Amino acid sequence: MPITARAALQPDPGARQLEIRTVDVAEPGPGQVRVRMGASGVCGSDRHVLEGDWTMPSPTVLGHEGAGTVEALGDGVTGFAEGDRVVMTWFQPCLACAACREGRTWVCTAASSEQCLLPDGTTPMSQDGAPVYPYLAVGSMSEYVVVPQQALVKIPEDVPFDVAALIGCSVATGVGAVLNDAEVKAGRGAVVIGAGGVGLCIIMGLALAGASPIIAADVNPESLELAREFGATHTVLSDASLPEKVREITGEGAEYAFEAIGRPQTIAQMPACLKRGGTAVIVGLPPQDAPVQIDALALAEEGKRLLGSNYGSTVPARDFPLLARLYLDGKLPVDRLITNRVGLEGVNDAFELMRQGARGRSVLVY
Amino acid sequence: MPITARAALQPDPGARQLEIRTVDVAEPGPGQVRVRMGASGVCGSDRHVLEGDWTMPSPTVLGHEGAGTVEALGDGVTGFAEGDRVVMTWFQPCLACAACREGRTWVCTAASSEQCLLPDGTTPMSQDGAPVYPYLAVGSMSEYVVVPQQALVKIPEDVPFDVAALIGCSVATGVGAVLNDAEVKAGRGAVVIGAGGVGLCIIMGLALAGASPIIAADVNPESLELAREFGATHTVLSDASLPEKVREITGEGAEYAFEAIGRPQTIAQMPACLKRGGTAVIVGLPPQDAPVQIDALALAEEGKRLLGSNYGSTVPARDFPLLARLYLDGKLPVDRLITNRVGLEGVNDAFELMRQGARGRSVLVY
Amino acid sequence: MPITARAALQPDPGARQLEIRTVDVAEPGPGQVRVRMGASGVCGSDRHVLEGDWTMPSPTVLGHEGAGTVEALGDGVTGFAEGDRVVMTWFQPCLACAACREGRTWVCTAASSEQCLLPDGTTPMSQDGAPVYPYLAVGSMSEYVVVPQQALVKIPEDVPFDVAALIGCSVATGVGAVLNDAEVKAGRGAVVIGAGGVGLCIIMGLALAGASPIIAADVNPESLELAREFGATHTVLSDASLPEKVREITGEGAEYAFEAIGRPQTIAQMPACLKRGGTAVIVGLPPQDAPVQIDALALAEEGKRLLGSNYGSTVPARDFPLLARLYLDGKLPVDRLITNRVGLEGVNDAFELMRQGARGRSVLVY
Amino acid sequence: MPITARAALQPDPGARQLEIRTVDVAEPGPGQVRVRMGASGVCGSDRHVLEGDWTMPSPTVLGHEGAGTVEALGDGVTGFAEGDRVVMTWFQPCLACAACREGRTWVCTAASSEQCLLPDGTTPMSQDGAPVYPYLAVGSMSEYVVVPQQALVKIPEDVPFDVAALIGCSVATGVGAVLNDAEVKAGRGAVVIGAGGVGLCIIMGLALAGASPIIAADVNPESLELAREFGATHTVLSDASLPEKVREITGEGAEYAFEAIGRPQTIAQMPACLKRGGTAVIVGLPPQDAPVQIDALALAEEGKRLLGSNYGSTVPARDFPLLARLYLDGKLPVDRLITNRVGLEGVNDAFELMRQGARGRSVLVY
Ligand SMILES: [Zn+2]
Ligand SMILES: [Zn+2]
Ligand SMILES: [Zn+2]
Ligand SMILES: [Zn+2]
Ligand SMILES: [Zn+2]
Ligand SMILES: [Zn+2]
Ligand SMILES: [Zn+2]
Ligand SMILES: [Zn+2]
Repeated sequence: MPITARAALQPDPGARQLEIRTVDVAEPGPGQVRVRMGASGVCGSDRHVLEGDWTMPSPTVLGHEGAGTVEALGDGVTGFAEGDRVVMTWFQPCLACAACREGRTWVCTAASSEQCLLPDGTTPMSQDGAPVYPYLAVGSMSEYVVVPQQALVKIPEDVPFDVAALIGCSVATGVGAVLNDAEVKAGRGAVVIGAGGVGLCIIMGLALAGASPIIAADVNPESLELAREFGATHTVLSDASLPEKVREITGEGAEYAFEAIGRPQTIAQMPACLKRGGTAVIVGLPPQDAPVQIDALALAEEGKRLLGSNYGSTVPARDFPLLARLYLDGKLPVDRLITNRVGLEGVNDAFELMRQGARGRSVLVY
Repeated sequence: MPITARAALQPDPGARQLEIRTVDVAEPGPGQVRVRMGASGVCGSDRHVLEGDWTMPSPTVLGHEGAGTVEALGDGVTGFAEGDRVVMTWFQPCLACAACREGRTWVCTAASSEQCLLPDGTTPMSQDGAPVYPYLAVGSMSEYVVVPQQALVKIPEDVPFDVAALIGCSVATGVGAVLNDAEVKAGRGAVVIGAGGVGLCIIMGLALAGASPIIAADVNPESLELAREFGATHTVLSDASLPEKVREITGEGAEYAFEAIGRPQTIAQMPACLKRGGTAVIVGLPPQDAPVQIDALALAEEGKRLLGSNYGSTVPARDFPLLARLYLDGKLPVDRLITNRVGLEGVNDAFELMRQGARGRSVLVY
Repeated sequence: MPITARAALQPDPGARQLEIRTVDVAEPGPGQVRVRMGASGVCGSDRHVLEGDWTMPSPTVLGHEGAGTVEALGDGVTGFAEGDRVVMTWFQPCLACAACREGRTWVCTAASSEQCLLPDGTTPMSQDGAPVYPYLAVGSMSEYVVVPQQALVKIPEDVPFDVAALIGCSVATGVGAVLNDAEVKAGRGAVVIGAGGVGLCIIMGLALAGASPIIAADVNPESLELAREFGATHTVLSDASLPEKVREITGEGAEYAFEAIGRPQTIAQMPACLKRGGTAVIVGLPPQDAPVQIDALALAEEGKRLLGSNYGSTVPARDFPLLARLYLDGKLPVDRLITNRVGLEGVNDAFELMRQGARGRSVLVY
Repeated sequence: MPITARAALQPDPGARQLEIRTVDVAEPGPGQVRVRMGASGVCGSDRHVLEGDWTMPSPTVLGHEGAGTVEALGDGVTGFAEGDRVVMTWFQPCLACAACREGRTWVCTAASSEQCLLPDGTTPMSQDGAPVYPYLAVGSMSEYVVVPQQALVKIPEDVPFDVAALIGCSVATGVGAVLNDAEVKAGRGAVVIGAGGVGLCIIMGLALAGASPIIAADVNPESLELAREFGATHTVLSDASLPEKVREITGEGAEYAFEAIGRPQTIAQMPACLKRGGTAVIVGLPPQDAPVQIDALALAEEGKRLLGSNYGSTVPARDFPLLARLYLDGKLPVDRLITNRVGLEGVNDAFELMRQGARGRSVLVY
């Protein structure tokens, strides 16, 4: 039986404010699961869609990092039961192609979630019979969602929903960039450009992995202060002289650099922040059609590497439980990321805070 | 006792023709060795200097890939004897810094060879008492050279000098980019942009490592024909549609791409030639101050990697003997690269052939 | 509708001869597929079962490396159609656990195939209503089999069934041990102990990956002769002095050693065949309860590694098509492995040939 | 000018007590350095020699982990000056062979230090003209030593000698086994068998790298208590049921196991403590001629790996400064390892404490 849900909707691609509307949510079809949302993060990717940087099918229910409780199962779902606490993944690989089978699910080419569609090509949300698209086939800024079972990973009872929601996106992305992409080794130095939600998660990941020094760079001194709480050993104001500042601290440059904003200018700064043989990782997604000017001669002569990182190269079934356990162990202070908890109706205020460069993350709680 | 040598000299940075002159070559100092040259390759890097793309101290004796016979030893040289057959390395690391000690000699920051100087800060060549600079502290386009002992690696008797000279640069660079940087796994597809000297070596390396398919791309149909002899399974004319051509052959794109020219436009094409999760390697050195426009969004979203490769991340003491043995085993047809053997006085003709886009490599033989 | 099939059956664990019997084969259940067999390899693992070395449920239809044609699909099977040509995998992972999701399917702990059962805990074969167990849930020495869909990988039209069958076990195991486990780099030396079916596949893999030298060791001179055809550059008779013989050829020892028999004595020889820092891989499965005496002091002092390899750490969806293409490219001469093709009724003769140490492999063709 | 030094001498291989004697210490020859010792650790390897487990040239000055001050330089020494504070390395590679040049110095085959000799084949110590052998060419239980320059690494002023001495052996060995050999990834579980000096360093390394859980196993409850201070999250008494205890905590077994004692029985337990696909590392050196009984079938079937680790695969020039910085950062509490500081004359008491299974480490201070 279809149900209705209150959801934060972008009515058309030009709208810059979300509207809280009631949408119809279909019964879960074969292999699908309905989840009653417990929490949804408010993330930079949602903002990119809201500001029209990226093209998405419309109208769109935003939200892609969420956690909640399994409420109804479609046919053939195995491994889940009503009442299970789950985190969502916003990239839903086919699990059948060679990339998926070799564990590089993040490079699956058959994922329909990027088109905001379920694997069967449909959308479970509608309004007056017209389709509504859950962002990345999640749409977690809704009281209820229907997702394919491969979008779900169970989490322990003692991990609260707001923490769990962030594990599903920012934490996986940031910590994953450190562990899965850069494969940071203890005792090496790193610089992180941008100390927002994902940047702080990268810093957490670096502290976890024993990196030293950990240099946070941002234009906002308050963000830098927060960065220290997550493990930054040094902080610098981000400007055109960033490479020199990194060299002052490290001598020869950092072994690793991470860009967590998606600005072409700061991405371009990374190679010059590195020591010879170092590794730069692009974590922030730049706007479409904004090429980055890379000094390829320096890259080649100095044996440097530039890695693109999508979702922290996360394997959710392995990494979400692992991140949850590290949180419970006190080794990943995910809860400290959350500086603002609001209800669904507070969503536009939450985006406004983000626009103003507020420290930490907002989470919608239901 | 100093000696004299006939050498190919660029008298000033503006000169586009080399002059064959007699230069004075000092006695080998402590830790230095005098080598009677047997062969010197004529390489794209020499041409970059000759054409003023890169700034070097002047006057300059060109040549940086050479092989010859040890003729005299300075004090304290160990491990070499008169009569030893040796290949030269044009990057002469300090062997004492942390990078050198961990085997990443190609990222040593204390190498003086990039300034065309011996480790003691001097140059062994002069003319009428004025300093002359051997390119990369080698200057192999000279009958005799004096180099530091860490520039030398012994080679087996049965490897001819012309083959040995190429092992010291193009082969190490191209095969090394495949084995040491990309770490190509058998059965994966690769595209190589530019089928000149280094490009053919990359193709040889790919064939050696079992890559499949191996796609050569060049603007010159004759070069593509030659590429097949070195192991290319497919060839395509290089133009703006290269990514589509690679996709026609591979389906989802190549797992690896290599750029062997140093053109910003073709370096920028690499990410689009790759399948998701693939790896691009910059082997050709672009001109100074020519940034490359990279589609960073695609890099990040598709988990692609862009690696700079310097000297194939070669460890000469390990790799030169290994490459020599593979040549002797018939697994690396290095000799087929050499399409033109000339004396020292033929050097300007050899560069002219290169300018005309001739197939294969010229080698000066003494 | 159930069907009947002629199959090679071990009636009880004590029997040393197979009997050709008619068994009942159930309809394919949900997620299951019926395959009409085209070819089945006769492999050392089958022999271990036949000789009572390993305990299996009984009666058992032997055969675990097979290829054939899809004939009937159970409910919910996707990605396969009647008439598809397929290779089978004898290890059928759950595809849901963390190990499976991160691409290490060979370490899945939830695979029922090791108990000769389908994922639903049943066996599709029976005789007079009593259960019959297909070895490793395959039982390819039968005209028809029913397997779970994750046991199947499609292969190109132009790969013959006998070659395809071997890709499904010996080739995947041997080449995979080289590419996936040892991650052999070109130009390094290797010794392979045992030049039977799997050993020859290891040698093929080493030649593919550019290893040099490639030393084959066996007690049978004829096997050594065959090894040369697959790429061995040196051959030695296997005895207690094997480490010295390897050192005579390599100087300091081999970088890699592979044991393809499963004899404790030859497994124990591997570390001494290696140079310092080298890697030994156990590919052959030893009998149960036969510990191997390892010189742990040498292992530790000399920084050597001993790796267990199961199924070549194969990811079938990625590796079987890759191996098939390398066969079609002429880079893996799998067909030359097959020295004996017989019908189902020749199966006991085939095992007898194996007991006599015959060169190459027998394949049953239907 | 030769000098004399008080040193702890094992007069003959049968002696179980050291004698404090005056020995002659030669002038530093070419490439050699005289160091005035500041501290020397008392390590399990010294004890193996003292108890006759390993054969060494005799008489022997024990001690191989030391730190001190450069006092005199032989000819041709570069990079060191009088007054430099230095740590010693007890494995002194040739720096010229291929292994050394590729950064795997710990597999150098040309190191004379294992024979307790300087690279020129001499010993710098003597008594009444008869040679005395410094253990591993260090002999740090002496007021003065003469070592080759490649045995020295400079350390920052603010690292005390006792901490520095331990960095040179136990810490490098234990943390290196984690970072360089096992390459432990954050969030994975590990068990460490033996919570003595090296075991505690392994535990420190695991905590640094973010491993979770970290299980310490020992027969001594006091050692387990200490293990918790270094980062163990769980402790278990070591006995025949260790694998079951590890499984109780981890479910499927640990991803990593480390043996830090050198007992064949506990080395043999490691594979059973691992989950499928896990990695075991032999860090403790077993007595000579004591083979370990390995379950090779389990190793192969379950894709497990057994790695020998020598000196933590340390690159001293890279790793000692890195470990020193991590100590200064508070990320490696090396000082807490030291539970007993004594003068040279207390050396026999220190060994006696070790025999009694005392917690932590003794350090001789000068
Ligand atoms: Zn997929
Ligand atoms: Zn997000
Ligand atoms: Zn060159
Ligand atoms: Zn250096
Ligand atoms: Zn599984
Ligand atoms: Zn088989
Ligand atoms: Zn060495
Ligand atoms: Zn020690």
